[in-house]
Amino acid sequence: MSSMMLSEACDAPERIADQLTRNAEPLAELGAWLRQRDPHGVVTVARGSSDHAASYFAYLCMQSRGTPVASLPPSLTTLARAPWKLDGQLALAISQSGQSPDLIETQRSLAVGGARTLALVNTPRSPLGAVSDREIALHAGEERSVAATKSYLATLSACAQLLGYWNRDRELLDALEALPERLRKSAGLDWSPAIEALRDADRLMVVGRGAGLAVVQEAALKFKETCAIQAEPFSGAEVKHGPMALIGPGYPVLVFAPAGPEQAGLLELAEWLRSVGARVLLAADEGIAQRELTLADAGHAALQPLAVIQSFYVMAAGLAEARGNDPDQPRHLKKVTRTR
Amino acid sequence: MSSMMLSEACDAPERIADQLTRNAEPLAELGAWLRQRDPHGVVTVARGSSDHAASYFAYLCMQSRGTPVASLPPSLTTLARAPWKLDGQLALAISQSGQSPDLIETQRSLAVGGARTLALVNTPRSPLGAVSDREIALHAGEERSVAATKSYLATLSACAQLLGYWNRDRELLDALEALPERLRKSAGLDWSPAIEALRDADRLMVVGRGAGLAVVQEAALKFKETCAIQAEPFSGAEVKHGPMALIGPGYPVLVFAPAGPEQAGLLELAEWLRSVGARVLLAADEGIAQRELTLADAGHAALQPLAVIQSFYVMAAGLAEARGNDPDQPRHLKKVTRTR
Repeated sequence: MSSMMLSEACDAPERIADQLTRNAEPLAELGAWLRQRDPHGVVTVARGSSDHAASYFAYLCMQSRGTPVASLPPSLTTLARAPWKLDGQLALAISQSGQSPDLIETQRSLAVGGARTLALVNTPRSPLGAVSDREIALHAGEERSVAATKSYLATLSACAQLLGYWNRDRELLDALEALPERLRKSAGLDWSPAIEALRDADRLMVVGRGAGLAVVQEAALKFKETCAIQAEPFSGAEVKHGPMALIGPGYPVLVFAPAGPEQAGLLELAEWLRSVGARVLLAADEGIAQRELTLADAGHAALQPLAVIQSFYVMAAGLAEARGNDPDQPRHLKKVTRTR
Repeated sequence: MSSMMLSEACDAPERIADQLTRNAEPLAELGAWLRQRDPHGVVTVARGSSDHAASYFAYLCMQSRGTPVASLPPSLTTLARAPWKLDGQLALAISQSGQSPDLIETQRSLAVGGARTLALVNTPRSPLGAVSDREIALHAGEERSVAATKSYLATLSACAQLLGYWNRDRELLDALEALPERLRKSAGLDWSPAIEALRDADRLMVVGRGAGLAVVQEAALKFKETCAIQAEPFSGAEVKHGPMALIGPGYPVLVFAPAGPEQAGLLELAEWLRSVGARVLLAADEGIAQRELTLADAGHAALQPLAVIQSFYVMAAGLAEARGNDPDQPRHLKKVTRTR
């Protein structure tokens, strides 16, 4: 196995270690700036993997601060010309390149509507940063595989560090210091049972809950991009509203159930799925005997999704190769996508 | 064809005509109440089809008022115990039964956090309404098929009427008066080419954009529930970020492209999809020569999604029967779903 996807995924712990050090000062300062303004709402703007990262930020922000976070479809600005009224709100735009014209136009329009604006980008001094009050760099390094891996992980860690400083959450900031080591452990875990089980799959479900839903979305997208498997993301709660009708004997379901308050319900769901004949791949910590895949402990509830997706990426790169796909060059896709 | 799903779907225009009359006064009053409070943000709480309706409300509310709308996963309250800070915000909960314990607990907690609360329910004097400042009834009548149809359509029309009164939008309110007649026309359109094309499909994509994304989500869920087809919803913009890798020769894609600012981009996308061999089913108005399926004009841009899903429901009921499925009793599903 020698794809760029694999080597970039395995490079994530190193890049995140570097990021945490380099962003400590800018984010401490940004945290003070945010506490002073105390936004009563946040809006996010992003697409693709960056949008999944935004949903991770949204969950943690709402959970820790009780501040609602709305995800804005860019078309509301670019096509529908929404008359934004955003006094006292923060607009967070996330983009690897920081070049997408629709995101730039949206961010500008949100500022006109009264929002304070922040850009998270991998390429610093970006056009998106230029139209924002503040820009934070992800320091993920150059990413050459079309399938984003380390840049996604680095966006999650940046969101966690941002909230750590904003909330002056010492426990989270301490856990972040130990994160690179824990991600290294995650990258080394053996998820080959998933490669065996999914070698010939053409569709499946990925299920999780809470902050973990963000990495469920990301995993489902990665299955599509790199393996041409139609994998759809679901919250463990939503599965009971319709999607279950798909489940028949042998239907594959990948369940991410790291330790935490969501775990009990997900284990129950996995049990039920097995009882109706689904081919369940349960990813859980060492304490869960009925798991097929082992999750490393990320050291903090808010960081568990990073350990999950780190192990997943290594598996997905292997699965793509086992299926004869090139994970670095998915059909029809380019690295920078421009939309209106 | 004689499923309850089909007869309930065809009953929607009648039920909506009744709803619009009965809710005119309560919604005029609610509109005045909302203008007085002028919420600077809205949060929504719902699951399944009701959550798709919430995303329709969200798009129209943001488009017309510039007020951000955040969708709150119930687990943030029930599992994560988020410390809500919602002074000056409106919480909108949508539920057919108004009985789901997680929605009730969430609505109560949002009120404690400072939100004004509104419940949209089909069964009036519901437990959900009891914990809310206001309750609006959908008047969709009893729905016996597990697959929601008229109750979903009635939720969309209630959201549109609510915004019509809130915004004192005479044009929208006038268009609503003509809506039942236009939906009757939609229900009568011949979508049998879709039944032919999808009789043996096991996966597909449903694509739309803008306010229409809500009915794309709903259509994808209905394909799963009633036909056991793994249909996944996508925004026309997001398709370019990864999902396209799934598209190969013969892969079915249903594109909803009613007249409006989003249409041009969707037609372009449909063209591209055809060029790479996808089996495109383009639903568009009579003015679009390359359509496979005809959409009736709903008489107002905000109402086009209702015409789309009305025609879709009739087709889906027929497709389920053509595939030998019982659309009224999907595998594993019950009418009222309780989640924590």
